[in-house]
Amino acid sequence: MSIVVVGSVALDSLETPFGKVESILGGSATYFSVAASHFTKDIRLVAVVGEDFPPEHVDFLQSRGIDLTGLEQVSGKTFHWSGRYGHNLNVAETLSTELNVFEKFAPKLPESYRDAKYVFLANINPELQMDVLKQAENPELVVCDTMNLWISDRKAELLDTVKHVDIFVLNDAEARQLTDEPNLNRAAKKILDYGPKRVIIKKGEHGAVTFTRTSHFASPAYPLEEVFDPTGAGDSFAGGLLGYLASTDDLSEPNINKAIVYGTVVASFSVENFGLERQRTLTRAEIEDRFSEVRAITQF
Amino acid sequence: MSIVVVGSVALDSLETPFGKVESILGGSATYFSVAASHFTKDIRLVAVVGEDFPPEHVDFLQSRGIDLTGLEQVSGKTFHWSGRYGHNLNVAETLSTELNVFEKFAPKLPESYRDAKYVFLANINPELQMDVLKQAENPELVVCDTMNLWISDRKAELLDTVKHVDIFVLNDAEARQLTDEPNLNRAAKKILDYGPKRVIIKKGEHGAVTFTRTSHFASPAYPLEEVFDPTGAGDSFAGGLLGYLASTDDLSEPNINKAIVYGTVVASFSVENFGLERQRTLTRAEIEDRFSEVRAITQF
Repeated sequence: MSIVVVGSVALDSLETPFGKVESILGGSATYFSVAASHFTKDIRLVAVVGEDFPPEHVDFLQSRGIDLTGLEQVSGKTFHWSGRYGHNLNVAETLSTELNVFEKFAPKLPESYRDAKYVFLANINPELQMDVLKQAENPELVVCDTMNLWISDRKAELLDTVKHVDIFVLNDAEARQLTDEPNLNRAAKKILDYGPKRVIIKKGEHGAVTFTRTSHFASPAYPLEEVFDPTGAGDSFAGGLLGYLASTDDLSEPNINKAIVYGTVVASFSVENFGLERQRTLTRAEIEDRFSEVRAITQF
Repeated sequence: MSIVVVGSVALDSLETPFGKVESILGGSATYFSVAASHFTKDIRLVAVVGEDFPPEHVDFLQSRGIDLTGLEQVSGKTFHWSGRYGHNLNVAETLSTELNVFEKFAPKLPESYRDAKYVFLANINPELQMDVLKQAENPELVVCDTMNLWISDRKAELLDTVKHVDIFVLNDAEARQLTDEPNLNRAAKKILDYGPKRVIIKKGEHGAVTFTRTSHFASPAYPLEEVFDPTGAGDSFAGGLLGYLASTDDLSEPNINKAIVYGTVVASFSVENFGLERQRTLTRAEIEDRFSEVRAITQF
């Protein structure tokens, strides 16, 4: 099944306790697409970059089979995020956010994208997420992500968007912030009251949980001993999730649970090196090995 | 199989966002014993109380089938802990700790306790934990708990004790504190290097994980929407774990994993009301229902 993703394609400068990189390929739509490309090939990306965007990144994304018809290149500079992670690697300290061409991003779905069956609204302004939704013809599954900035600055618009989505994906801190509810299980119920059919809460090292009004599933994280760079973990999770769902075209409860485990597995690889480095060499066999390991460590 | 537990029997005064109670029955050995008593009846308690210890608490513990031969009553006042929990209910703020008769506690195993097959060293000074171990004749399984105070003030003694235990149980913050390792999987490996055959890390709302040198298992927490009073959750977890193990007398890997799930289930009930209130009415059928639910929410 085809997937459309709308989000950012960026250049990131990162510092972790293990090293430092300048202007490497990043962005939510990038991490999502590359993660999904381990499972499926019809991935259609909508984003904007500037004149400075290196052609080798375009080549790399195309080599993963990602459709770039919707990647606009406009005059100006590419979105550039600089961040630093401390010893515990859980929280990024933003050093600078240069939105550049991303500031005026008005996502347009090319004609050839509009019949996509699955839509992923990566973490962008919820008003733009709604615009995208209006352009999609008749998607079977709409999944949306968000971030703390939109929860604090665009809460009404965000709540309007999530009414129209099937799956709302956010992390534990965002779920608590959005609902003002310290108990995650209650936070999840409140979020379902906002309208999405399902909520998935990402908990980093503690895995992920999902709730509908009638069901619950908990996936542990793959027990990684080395987290090198957590950038893009959440988008890689969503990419693994939707990539697997699109490849199976099965939206049953058990298959969504499996897809969540695939999401945590792809995220576990993504954080093993800077940026997308680990995913460049990642194989489906490696993904299947970790998937089996997660199954083994949850048996009782 | 018989279990000996050595720890505190206390009177607790607690404040949570939901209310306030004065001098209710508490203490690590109490929570442990009551939790274990849902599974097995040969539970032998070693602790000390003062002259003020209400006889109805003795009656209650005896009604649960707990052997109190090792419960010394001495002149002076019972250990009294006062604590407060804020909105997020994760961290207790200690308002006062009156050790009273607990200050000079020198645990002695009555003759009739020495052949116990399972030993639980609840959270007391690690030197006392070692003293107890020397008094046990030939236990099949020794499990020990600890707390932040001993990690900071008695680290050498604690590391000496854990060399001699089969299972070391601690929470995630304690595991990180003990090893100075933010990554829990690495922290677990370091802890195994100290000598215990198995480590179990309690993660509160995120469940529990266990590691040996060759295996790993992750249990989610039961998805509770109301945490009323977290006091004793960790000791209730350990009580459920050892109670189930003692009742089955099966120390195989799969059975230990099941026991960990029983531990999280008993803890989930324990926190639903002040102190031991919820456990007073708890039935085995209720425990089995939640156990089945945890199995259901981990299937994929």
